[in-house]
Amino acid sequence: LDYQHVQVPFEITLWIMLASLAKIGFHLYNKLPSVVPESCLLIFVGLIMGGIIYGLNDKSPPVMDSDIFFLYLLPPIVLDAGYFMPSRPFFENIGTILLYAVVGTIWNVFGIGFSLYGICQVKAFHLQDVSLLHNLLFGSLIAAVDPVAVLAVFEEIHVNEKLHILVFGESLLNDAVTVVLYKLFRSFCEMPAIKSVDVFAGVGQFFVVGLGGVLVGLIFGMTAAFTTRFTKDIRVIEPLFVFLYSYLSYLTAEMFHLSGIMAIIACSMGMKRYVEANISLKSHTTVKYFMKMWSSVSDTLIFIFLGVSTIGENHEWNWPYICFTVIFCLVWRALGVLVLTFFVNRFHVNTITSKDQFIIAYGGLRGAICFSLVFLLPDFRRKKLFIAATTVVILFTVFVQGMTIRPLVDLLAVKRKRESAPTVGEQIHIRFLDHLLAGIEDISGHWGQYYWKDKLEYFNSKYLQKILLREYDQPKSSIVLLYEKLERKHAIELAEAGQLGHAPSHPSLLSSGFLCSDNDRTVITDKKLEDTVNPDVLENIQEILARNLYRIRRTGPAYSRHTLPGETEPGEHPKEILILRHKSL
Amino acid sequence: LDYQHVQVPFEITLWIMLASLAKIGFHLYNKLPSVVPESCLLIFVGLIMGGIIYGLNDKSPPVMDSDIFFLYLLPPIVLDAGYFMPSRPFFENIGTILLYAVVGTIWNVFGIGFSLYGICQVKAFHLQDVSLLHNLLFGSLIAAVDPVAVLAVFEEIHVNEKLHILVFGESLLNDAVTVVLYKLFRSFCEMPAIKSVDVFAGVGQFFVVGLGGVLVGLIFGMTAAFTTRFTKDIRVIEPLFVFLYSYLSYLTAEMFHLSGIMAIIACSMGMKRYVEANISLKSHTTVKYFMKMWSSVSDTLIFIFLGVSTIGENHEWNWPYICFTVIFCLVWRALGVLVLTFFVNRFHVNTITSKDQFIIAYGGLRGAICFSLVFLLPDFRRKKLFIAATTVVILFTVFVQGMTIRPLVDLLAVKRKRESAPTVGEQIHIRFLDHLLAGIEDISGHWGQYYWKDKLEYFNSKYLQKILLREYDQPKSSIVLLYEKLERKHAIELAEAGQLGHAPSHPSLLSSGFLCSDNDRTVITDKKLEDTVNPDVLENIQEILARNLYRIRRTGPAYSRHTLPGETEPGEHPKEILILRHKSL
Repeated sequence: LDYQHVQVPFEITLWIMLASLAKIGFHLYNKLPSVVPESCLLIFVGLIMGGIIYGLNDKSPPVMDSDIFFLYLLPPIVLDAGYFMPSRPFFENIGTILLYAVVGTIWNVFGIGFSLYGICQVKAFHLQDVSLLHNLLFGSLIAAVDPVAVLAVFEEIHVNEKLHILVFGESLLNDAVTVVLYKLFRSFCEMPAIKSVDVFAGVGQFFVVGLGGVLVGLIFGMTAAFTTRFTKDIRVIEPLFVFLYSYLSYLTAEMFHLSGIMAIIACSMGMKRYVEANISLKSHTTVKYFMKMWSSVSDTLIFIFLGVSTIGENHEWNWPYICFTVIFCLVWRALGVLVLTFFVNRFHVNTITSKDQFIIAYGGLRGAICFSLVFLLPDFRRKKLFIAATTVVILFTVFVQGMTIRPLVDLLAVKRKRESAPTVGEQIHIRFLDHLLAGIEDISGHWGQYYWKDKLEYFNSKYLQKILLREYDQPKSSIVLLYEKLERKHAIELAEAGQLGHAPSHPSLLSSGFLCSDNDRTVITDKKLEDTVNPDVLENIQEILARNLYRIRRTGPAYSRHTLPGETEPGEHPKEILILRHKSL
Repeated sequence: LDYQHVQVPFEITLWIMLASLAKIGFHLYNKLPSVVPESCLLIFVGLIMGGIIYGLNDKSPPVMDSDIFFLYLLPPIVLDAGYFMPSRPFFENIGTILLYAVVGTIWNVFGIGFSLYGICQVKAFHLQDVSLLHNLLFGSLIAAVDPVAVLAVFEEIHVNEKLHILVFGESLLNDAVTVVLYKLFRSFCEMPAIKSVDVFAGVGQFFVVGLGGVLVGLIFGMTAAFTTRFTKDIRVIEPLFVFLYSYLSYLTAEMFHLSGIMAIIACSMGMKRYVEANISLKSHTTVKYFMKMWSSVSDTLIFIFLGVSTIGENHEWNWPYICFTVIFCLVWRALGVLVLTFFVNRFHVNTITSKDQFIIAYGGLRGAICFSLVFLLPDFRRKKLFIAATTVVILFTVFVQGMTIRPLVDLLAVKRKRESAPTVGEQIHIRFLDHLLAGIEDISGHWGQYYWKDKLEYFNSKYLQKILLREYDQPKSSIVLLYEKLERKHAIELAEAGQLGHAPSHPSLLSSGFLCSDNDRTVITDKKLEDTVNPDVLENIQEILARNLYRIRRTGPAYSRHTLPGETEPGEHPKEILILRHKSL
């Protein structure tokens, strides 16, 4: 037995396997996931496992490594979130989201930090050695709303799209603020004296970190789109580039101390549209599937590790500090949302209702980001107290808030997500209104949202598409594209229905006969109408069948490294069928 | 700048990126890959990069780590090879393959080892300190035909299926023999005296290592198939299990010093058929695509690393030893193939022609496995000589043999792969003959290939399928399955052709009208035939269009972690369409 040799990959594989099996387990019993969010169940599994490890070894189980979290577990989730981000609601509400993410987070950090410092002054609590800076540092890490936790809960409660994007967008974009404040306070803690210059430099850093991240992301995104122009001959490695470039953008941003989350979101949102047009349909299925798979596994691992890391002797318990942390987190967030929404509502027609405000405030879940940041703190006397407080806040938000938010949404009758997407008619009207508003804004000289959107679209079709797309024709209307996609799906479904139904080969055979060039379809149809049991027709059908089966004869069975069996150029075979058919007539 | 922090993932990503870009580069210039095999080009890129690193740092570039090769780069390639292995030709020729893999490899090891020992006795060559055991050890690592190198070359020359499977199968299955002999000689080198017991133990090990690997693989394969029975509700993580279980089988086998290659091949061949039936179509596309992608990347990295590792100061040059190594490798392989084929041909009707024998002997390429094994040797005086000899043999086989094998195949007019797969008629005859032969073997009491195949098929349908498949009905005939698959493809193609051709919306719209329940198709067709420009019909068409577009209205646009947009149960929508349609009539 040579365990040492294979230890690293073996243990990683086993952890992933455990996570996946746990996921399967929950879904086997159908009622469980509808009551308790999956994140709670996973933390619970982690707690049990941590308890077992603690019991067996009699020492604290291993704590989730911050590096592993930030370098390997977080990027897949953010990539998935960015790639599948509904871009229209996101950009429509970008102002509100930024306000919550930047001003709201700063408000929370200072609010929590200063009020905890006030608590520390009470002599009875024995906390006088916790300085203001340490409290602010703690505030900066505990204020960060966690995208992973938010996603895990909000996906299951199906609130309306605007509410969803407000909470989710905030949790993604507050990364830049959190990173800056956390690093600022950490360096202040180590400085002998703080000059006002440092404070101003800190303010400047916000913009550098946030916008720098976006810039890095966009550069990598465009490079990725450009690269996929040239992958026509080796379809097999196409999906790779989507992952490689977005991961590189994250790592590069992290390397320069910029916001990696912003970078990967900008990268994935930027490249999506071009990559989709360049790569094959199967590659795209693979990209989408793998993103979901990867983020799902990461997410599962994070919550299990959270549970495991909770058990152990890292904690210093202090009732007042921990209780007040939970209370302040709730209170300051609620106040922040109220105040900010008041300003937002003054400038918008489509206001945020008080029910929505409640859900936004209540949905501010904390998760693995806080947890990793608190372990990254430099060693000082009260670190264990901070760890304990962070753990309690996370467990409180995920368990109490996460489990009660669904009943609350039901109780308050919060506006739900539309069950159906807009109809084609609606879509046309929306498009029409967009153009109209862009025109109005242009005339009135107001550089608003629609004006910029129009300009960007112009820039895109004038320059970007020509550089980044392989086959650049006149761009098809998205409605035409949608219809085409629909037809493809429809065709598959009907082919499948043909086989599911009665008499599998007969109707579907005829339908593939029907589905062809116009003239020849008529011929066969005529025959069909003429007489359905005529042996002559049957012979004809057999002929069609033999000709339709031409595809089998062409599929080479042997192994090849670079192609999948049956992978051929799209649009070539149908032409061939047409030619064959014309010959036979 | 904080490079340390992200170094490991950053460098891995960059290497993969480089490899992928190199691949794209080759394919941009179309003529290059048709003359020079990709493996040669990649080694060449590696050599250049190694030269640059050597020139800049003035020290040897890093050598490919054997652990990285065996734990991370080799498994994806073998998994891909096993999963896409054409099982019929493989099992039909299993006897011949095993003969080549076991007896042939032993023949080569001892032939090369003893004759090199003979060379070492010539005083003029200054090699008298190389013992017989060291020569045998060297023989055991240099005799191993490399699956990666063989695949890279044989995929491009399209020889007939039997020839391909003989060389490729041998390269895969000789792993067990190589591992045993290599470890045996290595432990003999360290022993003070060798007893005859040890030699017998070595012979016993063959069976343990080989069959043990197969057993481990089958256990994991069956578990994987069983697990996918329960993934219906979380389609997203389905593909993961295929990779996790096969990788675990490899690691487990390596852990117990069994043959990991045999394990992963047994695992993937064993689970394939059940997994395919259990998982969704999209999951399966993802699995196939990712396997190809991964193996393609691994393969590229291996050849680039081979090139990089060649440059440096690891070599001790000794003309006679190196030249004779190359010559003996060629001669002993040729002799071995001749002798073994003589025996094989005596027992088979379908003999291996002398042209085929030449290609089998000539196709014995060496690659990264030899290279990794030689670096794993314990340190002794002549290790650098062995490294030099191995490098030369690899470069000679990959460059000289790899580049000349295609012209030779053309020159000898070796029987090529059939361009087309067997027709349905042929398939039915093959199936019929299988049953007939199984019957004959049963009556005559001869337990041959067909008898066992029949028994295995019976066991499979009687027990295995009931345990491992989710929806176990009467198994469909593979011809029916094929026809269904074909129809699905056909439908997609025609839907795509409809949009590619003239007047995009009109004919395809009609075809989706045609494609439906039988009676309603007739109605529309009648109308169509009656009058094509009648405004009444146009209205009808608009109605159909509106109804067909029902799918858009149903697709929720919002983000979800666990599902892909538009992912629904197959077979549900077509029924709904039918219901809608019946209502409207």
